[in-house]
Amino acid sequence: MSLYDLLFGSAECELLYSDSACLQMLLRFAAVLADVEAAAGVIPQQAADAILAKCRADLFDLAELRKQTGLAGNLAIPVVKQLTALVAAGNKEAAGFVHWGATSQDAMDTGAVAQLSVALDFYERELAHLSNTLASLAALHRSTMVVARTWMQQALPTSFGLIVAGWLDALLRDRKRLQEMRPRVLTLQFGGAVGSLAALGEKGPVVAKALAQELKLSLPAVPWHAHRDRMAEAAAFFGLSVGTLGKIARDISLYAQTEVGELAEPEAAGRGGSSTMPQKNNPVTCAVVLAAAQRVPGLVSTMLSVMPQEYQRGLGGWHAEWEVLPEIVRLSCGALHHLSEMMPRLQVNSERMKANLDASNGLIFAEAVSMDLARRIGKSAAHELVQAECKRALAEKRHLKDVLAVDEKSRPELKGMDLESLFDAKKYLGSASEFIQRVLLEHAELSGGSQNPLRTEVK
Amino acid sequence: MSLYDLLFGSAECELLYSDSACLQMLLRFAAVLADVEAAAGVIPQQAADAILAKCRADLFDLAELRKQTGLAGNLAIPVVKQLTALVAAGNKEAAGFVHWGATSQDAMDTGAVAQLSVALDFYERELAHLSNTLASLAALHRSTMVVARTWMQQALPTSFGLIVAGWLDALLRDRKRLQEMRPRVLTLQFGGAVGSLAALGEKGPVVAKALAQELKLSLPAVPWHAHRDRMAEAAAFFGLSVGTLGKIARDISLYAQTEVGELAEPEAAGRGGSSTMPQKNNPVTCAVVLAAAQRVPGLVSTMLSVMPQEYQRGLGGWHAEWEVLPEIVRLSCGALHHLSEMMPRLQVNSERMKANLDASNGLIFAEAVSMDLARRIGKSAAHELVQAECKRALAEKRHLKDVLAVDEKSRPELKGMDLESLFDAKKYLGSASEFIQRVLLEHAELSGGSQNPLRTEVK
Amino acid sequence: MSLYDLLFGSAECELLYSDSACLQMLLRFAAVLADVEAAAGVIPQQAADAILAKCRADLFDLAELRKQTGLAGNLAIPVVKQLTALVAAGNKEAAGFVHWGATSQDAMDTGAVAQLSVALDFYERELAHLSNTLASLAALHRSTMVVARTWMQQALPTSFGLIVAGWLDALLRDRKRLQEMRPRVLTLQFGGAVGSLAALGEKGPVVAKALAQELKLSLPAVPWHAHRDRMAEAAAFFGLSVGTLGKIARDISLYAQTEVGELAEPEAAGRGGSSTMPQKNNPVTCAVVLAAAQRVPGLVSTMLSVMPQEYQRGLGGWHAEWEVLPEIVRLSCGALHHLSEMMPRLQVNSERMKANLDASNGLIFAEAVSMDLARRIGKSAAHELVQAECKRALAEKRHLKDVLAVDEKSRPELKGMDLESLFDAKKYLGSASEFIQRVLLEHAELSGGSQNPLRTEVK
Amino acid sequence: MSLYDLLFGSAECELLYSDSACLQMLLRFAAVLADVEAAAGVIPQQAADAILAKCRADLFDLAELRKQTGLAGNLAIPVVKQLTALVAAGNKEAAGFVHWGATSQDAMDTGAVAQLSVALDFYERELAHLSNTLASLAALHRSTMVVARTWMQQALPTSFGLIVAGWLDALLRDRKRLQEMRPRVLTLQFGGAVGSLAALGEKGPVVAKALAQELKLSLPAVPWHAHRDRMAEAAAFFGLSVGTLGKIARDISLYAQTEVGELAEPEAAGRGGSSTMPQKNNPVTCAVVLAAAQRVPGLVSTMLSVMPQEYQRGLGGWHAEWEVLPEIVRLSCGALHHLSEMMPRLQVNSERMKANLDASNGLIFAEAVSMDLARRIGKSAAHELVQAECKRALAEKRHLKDVLAVDEKSRPELKGMDLESLFDAKKYLGSASEFIQRVLLEHAELSGGSQNPLRTEVK
Repeated sequence: MSLYDLLFGSAECELLYSDSACLQMLLRFAAVLADVEAAAGVIPQQAADAILAKCRADLFDLAELRKQTGLAGNLAIPVVKQLTALVAAGNKEAAGFVHWGATSQDAMDTGAVAQLSVALDFYERELAHLSNTLASLAALHRSTMVVARTWMQQALPTSFGLIVAGWLDALLRDRKRLQEMRPRVLTLQFGGAVGSLAALGEKGPVVAKALAQELKLSLPAVPWHAHRDRMAEAAAFFGLSVGTLGKIARDISLYAQTEVGELAEPEAAGRGGSSTMPQKNNPVTCAVVLAAAQRVPGLVSTMLSVMPQEYQRGLGGWHAEWEVLPEIVRLSCGALHHLSEMMPRLQVNSERMKANLDASNGLIFAEAVSMDLARRIGKSAAHELVQAECKRALAEKRHLKDVLAVDEKSRPELKGMDLESLFDAKKYLGSASEFIQRVLLEHAELSGGSQNPLRTEVK
Repeated sequence: MSLYDLLFGSAECELLYSDSACLQMLLRFAAVLADVEAAAGVIPQQAADAILAKCRADLFDLAELRKQTGLAGNLAIPVVKQLTALVAAGNKEAAGFVHWGATSQDAMDTGAVAQLSVALDFYERELAHLSNTLASLAALHRSTMVVARTWMQQALPTSFGLIVAGWLDALLRDRKRLQEMRPRVLTLQFGGAVGSLAALGEKGPVVAKALAQELKLSLPAVPWHAHRDRMAEAAAFFGLSVGTLGKIARDISLYAQTEVGELAEPEAAGRGGSSTMPQKNNPVTCAVVLAAAQRVPGLVSTMLSVMPQEYQRGLGGWHAEWEVLPEIVRLSCGALHHLSEMMPRLQVNSERMKANLDASNGLIFAEAVSMDLARRIGKSAAHELVQAECKRALAEKRHLKDVLAVDEKSRPELKGMDLESLFDAKKYLGSASEFIQRVLLEHAELSGGSQNPLRTEVK
Repeated sequence: MSLYDLLFGSAECELLYSDSACLQMLLRFAAVLADVEAAAGVIPQQAADAILAKCRADLFDLAELRKQTGLAGNLAIPVVKQLTALVAAGNKEAAGFVHWGATSQDAMDTGAVAQLSVALDFYERELAHLSNTLASLAALHRSTMVVARTWMQQALPTSFGLIVAGWLDALLRDRKRLQEMRPRVLTLQFGGAVGSLAALGEKGPVVAKALAQELKLSLPAVPWHAHRDRMAEAAAFFGLSVGTLGKIARDISLYAQTEVGELAEPEAAGRGGSSTMPQKNNPVTCAVVLAAAQRVPGLVSTMLSVMPQEYQRGLGGWHAEWEVLPEIVRLSCGALHHLSEMMPRLQVNSERMKANLDASNGLIFAEAVSMDLARRIGKSAAHELVQAECKRALAEKRHLKDVLAVDEKSRPELKGMDLESLFDAKKYLGSASEFIQRVLLEHAELSGGSQNPLRTEVK
Repeated sequence: MSLYDLLFGSAECELLYSDSACLQMLLRFAAVLADVEAAAGVIPQQAADAILAKCRADLFDLAELRKQTGLAGNLAIPVVKQLTALVAAGNKEAAGFVHWGATSQDAMDTGAVAQLSVALDFYERELAHLSNTLASLAALHRSTMVVARTWMQQALPTSFGLIVAGWLDALLRDRKRLQEMRPRVLTLQFGGAVGSLAALGEKGPVVAKALAQELKLSLPAVPWHAHRDRMAEAAAFFGLSVGTLGKIARDISLYAQTEVGELAEPEAAGRGGSSTMPQKNNPVTCAVVLAAAQRVPGLVSTMLSVMPQEYQRGLGGWHAEWEVLPEIVRLSCGALHHLSEMMPRLQVNSERMKANLDASNGLIFAEAVSMDLARRIGKSAAHELVQAECKRALAEKRHLKDVLAVDEKSRPELKGMDLESLFDAKKYLGSASEFIQRVLLEHAELSGGSQNPLRTEVK
């Protein structure tokens, strides 16, 4: 728990990774293990019952766990020790069957996977929510004209709906990635000391299968103690997805600049103010998302670089994952949550969009003019001619259309252009509308029809 | 080209990313674009023919391209310029239609995707090859006993086949990831200056579709200039896969230590020697693979961290990708190629494996003894008792079995254990054989039956 | 606070970065600011007194701070708000002078620097402590023979003291780096809203100077809100230093392998055990240090990649630092503390070192033989000849000396070698002793004579 | 060599890391080694002479080296082999003394350090050049008013000279870092097979000292084969410095936005154009520098994460450095060179700066008003009151001064403010001028008086 938990994280994820939640995940493993082992005849049913009764985080001494973890080198060892003591207090014999046949890493990896499963559910819901908002926004602004910018320079006119459709399209890919990854990543870890389940004799596969079913996790072909690609894949998924969130936040922060002013984060009491400047409305959500997008990549690289773990269970590499994966999840869920919550109230200033289209004295129509001209005199010649006209317009602070209209008289190549039409932003949108439509259809398909912004729009 | 290309890379990938190959990818885009635009009636057929005739890398001046690229800020601009000049020399009018309606990023991204497509084919073949080798190895060593090690300490006996099956299982996941990723990543980029294909009027979608078909790439819903998740996903895939290769190499390098000696890289003339120590057989392949596994994560983090690109086409972030993604591909293909080539000749020293099993004076059977005992006196008590016996064995440099045999007389809990059986490694393999079998079946399925090590083995 | 705080961190650093410690650092800034502003006549002395009286973390509502931080986007805004309210409750007028002329970032950066200052003190002390231990160890084992290994293969004999001297030498460089960095990094941040101290009129420099003096920080030439190299430099320092700690831990973990057995972490109750294997003594300290050495680099890359912050105070990049730098400090201090605490009790098994020297049947003397021979027949010829002899020794499982002794009769080049001397490890130590001496002298110099292991040794 | 070498790199650095330059660095080591060994009586002088005569890169077969390097696992082994053969062709006996007593890593590390030395010279010169440009610019624009922006929002007025002084101040820190690092990093590597110089008997120290002198490198206390902090420190230095270059480029790219227009990269033939939009003047230099600033951090993290190398010379980690450090140097030198070359021609549009100061209808004077008011009614009350006035100004699209002038009548707190003075940007610069002066003095000191922009200015 830190003072920044509600800024960089989300309330849900903080709860998921609280000390007692982490402990409870380990206890759940111990409880279900005892249960299925009893069912398989590996341990006595009454031992399982006695164990189950003590698998409650509130019975544990967290301060002592913290201290013992510092000594033991992992969390599972002191948890098993405390659990054993708790069980022994009531049933000495049952205590002997705690954590039977399992190794620390079985409990810890399975616990981590179970937490990941909850986190992915949350992330999927928030992705769907944000997608719905963007779909509505794209549909609404299908024909809202705005300046398109490349290399941070005004380039051409485009539609704001197309920009939003691009954001949405990227989110839809994340939703597909999440679906593909889920069964591969949400997988039981259960191999005993070295991955052979030797301590369970012939009962290993039966116990493992029941354990997976009970915990609603996939059953892997083989335990994967020192093969960390599953964990790293989850990390990489979040890395990709937070990158896209960062792209959206980067855009909003740029559109929200005082000098651009086309978008703004919604004002809210206590949000976005400065400690010293009364006029400020700082884009706090963008800052949070961009911070996550800059922090997660380094954490993903750690998850990848620790993959070459030694032998059957490694030294140091696995330990490095314990805090890094939760941190990735925390930052990703936090960023998505904040963006998804802000987006429905994003302020779109279409007047300012229009004003900015006019601000360049027609220079953003240079490509339109050039392509029109190119049909007659070739692209290079057209490019050079229009480039010269642009420089003149800039130097003389006149509108490009006016410069062209005058030069038309002296330069035969320029004759016969329909300047009115060429300088009409709406006529230079190309396939924008079709592109938007395609993305909205994809979104509708993925949403199973229940969240169809197209339908809403048609009404 | 560098002096290390054949050490860190593979010959195939060097060719793929040579200067002229990079140029040719851009020219192919220009050629196919002209072709499909002619077919769509956007440009004259004879212009397309004239352009196609010049889309050959050998006609270009690479030194000049290098120089102009330094000025222009990307490779496509000087390529288009040179191509235009080449076409103009024969057909002035046709020259005006070069690169019609496209932007630099269309050519460069599509070229990069096309290179990625070739690289993924290569990578997939090599993954299949390495999988086949490992499947045979796992089947062969199903019952070869070896020490399992955790935290870099001897732990229990296991089977070498199980270890290899773990390696194979991870590779199979990479093969599946590659299949899932392929259509999403291998996608056309074609949006014109700002992603609307404005310069093509209404012909945008038709041209784009034909272009994708001709280039054998997916057609995206919308151009993705500033949405880099596809490129980053490819990077992350390689990051995950090289991590697994690194895990395998880490293991081999540990097994190949003089003091362990259970595996060795094959000797070959000019390979693995030292410049000063005549006795050395250095594991060069492991070094190469481990170097890749330590370099790729940082590069992946770059690909992720540049994702938040500005507006419709970004500044700096996109530029950062140009050399980073090829470097990831080069290192990954190189690592896989070297490992895949070495593995069929990996030296397995099963005698040494056996000797190492015996080296601990029975300590690696401590868990077997403890679990047996635990059935009667509970796990904690058994654990503590056996721990004490282990310390005694260690201090007195005697075999644990002997220590136990003596103590059996004085300690009633120890009575009745079948020490012979408990100290028989073969009897403490648990589910190893079933796990191996499962992985081999998965491999056989994925390989479509054509490469079935199980069948070979049955004969 | 997390369950892993005492494993990955150290008690001191946890305290330093606790919620209330973070709050107190901000309050200290507010208090000293008021104080020096009063002295400079910027605000009334009684206002300063009233403010000072409330700058106590225990007066604040941490839960509310957490909540408001989530809204406000940084910690300073709600702290200033709560502080203002606390002051206002007693002295309405004084409340108007809280945080006078400062911006959030002034308080937060200066607070972070002050925390860093404490952390560097701790780190320096622990570096000195570890250096002293290593100096004694190097002196003690100046002549303890051990196998030197390269590429993870046995290479030549060396002295264990030389190995330790190498570790120490690297630590001494870190101590020098720390000294050089200190005044540059431990610098006041005080610039007001945009770095001009405009709100203080002409009193800016006077207030800033007094503030720096009072806080025992350097006074920078100019505020550095958006220039983050100081913070990144601290991060990079820890990255370098943890890399060296990781090198030492890597070595110890390798020497501690069951098959090598030359070093071991000390046994301690509750430390290094396994949850299932009674015989295990896992090197927990190595795991902790190696985990840090794998986590810090990714965090450093984040600190570097956020450096290009926008304009006068950036968006997202600065936010990314808030948790990353403390995490780097926590992991580094934790790793150093654990290593420094374990090292005095490191178990050195010189018997096993000796045994391993003998384990290769003389192969580690191959270079000695080869160089001796080279003086007569040239290096290449000698290298090839000895290589062949090594292969023979290996194949026939005979001692290289014996093989050479036999072949001496048939191969004239081999005649006249003093085999006894060539196969005496002590005679093949080259400059080891001088190198050790040099490092010990450097250590003694840096330690100002107070901690001189040489002197101790001489007695 | 790649098509992007002149875009991302600089001509000097490309030459430094060309294949033949890399080879020549190894040959220089071989030559100087032979020379000093002859002088020390370790090898015959005529052998040294014969070796020296062949240490010329143009005598070597690069294609063969490339091929053999792929086999041997490093570059030094085949170089030594070819050199030996070349020497043997003329003097068989001398050939036996090539690379006497050294190991591959001695040659390769020393070669890498020597290349680094040249690169640092270049970098230092370019830093000095850029510093001089910035010093002049800061002096020139000491009083040029410009909007200061925080969180990408207009904040207060400031002086452009102060902004440039901030850039300069950061560069001066890099220059100091470089000076401090130089002797520690530019250090000889010479330890023989395992760091003891065993093969040289007692002559090790003498040879090493002469070698260091001849190569103009520091002599380390002890060889540092597996201690990589020196290399990593160089990497981290570049990481810090490129971060600052990225900060400057980030700023310029923001100031160069069409909507801001306060700075622009100079136009040049063939630079900054678009392949399709004639009006574009893209900031190519910013793109190059920002790309470097996003690529180097990941590479630095690799250099840090490979530090824990195994035993006396590691496996994989060292190999990972070979291409990574040169890539860091290439990108850093390229970025600095491009920025340093562009900066003297940076276009400063002070008219536009003035216009943007006026664009907010007085909102950027909100803090000035608020602080003035605060002196009477306290900071919180003032803040809230002015915030309300700002909102009104914004909503009613009126100038804040006018809104205040009207409200003054109804709100007693507002009475008596000197609105003219409060809304005069020049009067709200605080300590800007003094800050600029301090930085210019620091620069003058570091430049030894020869490059003193202050003096120029005074004239």
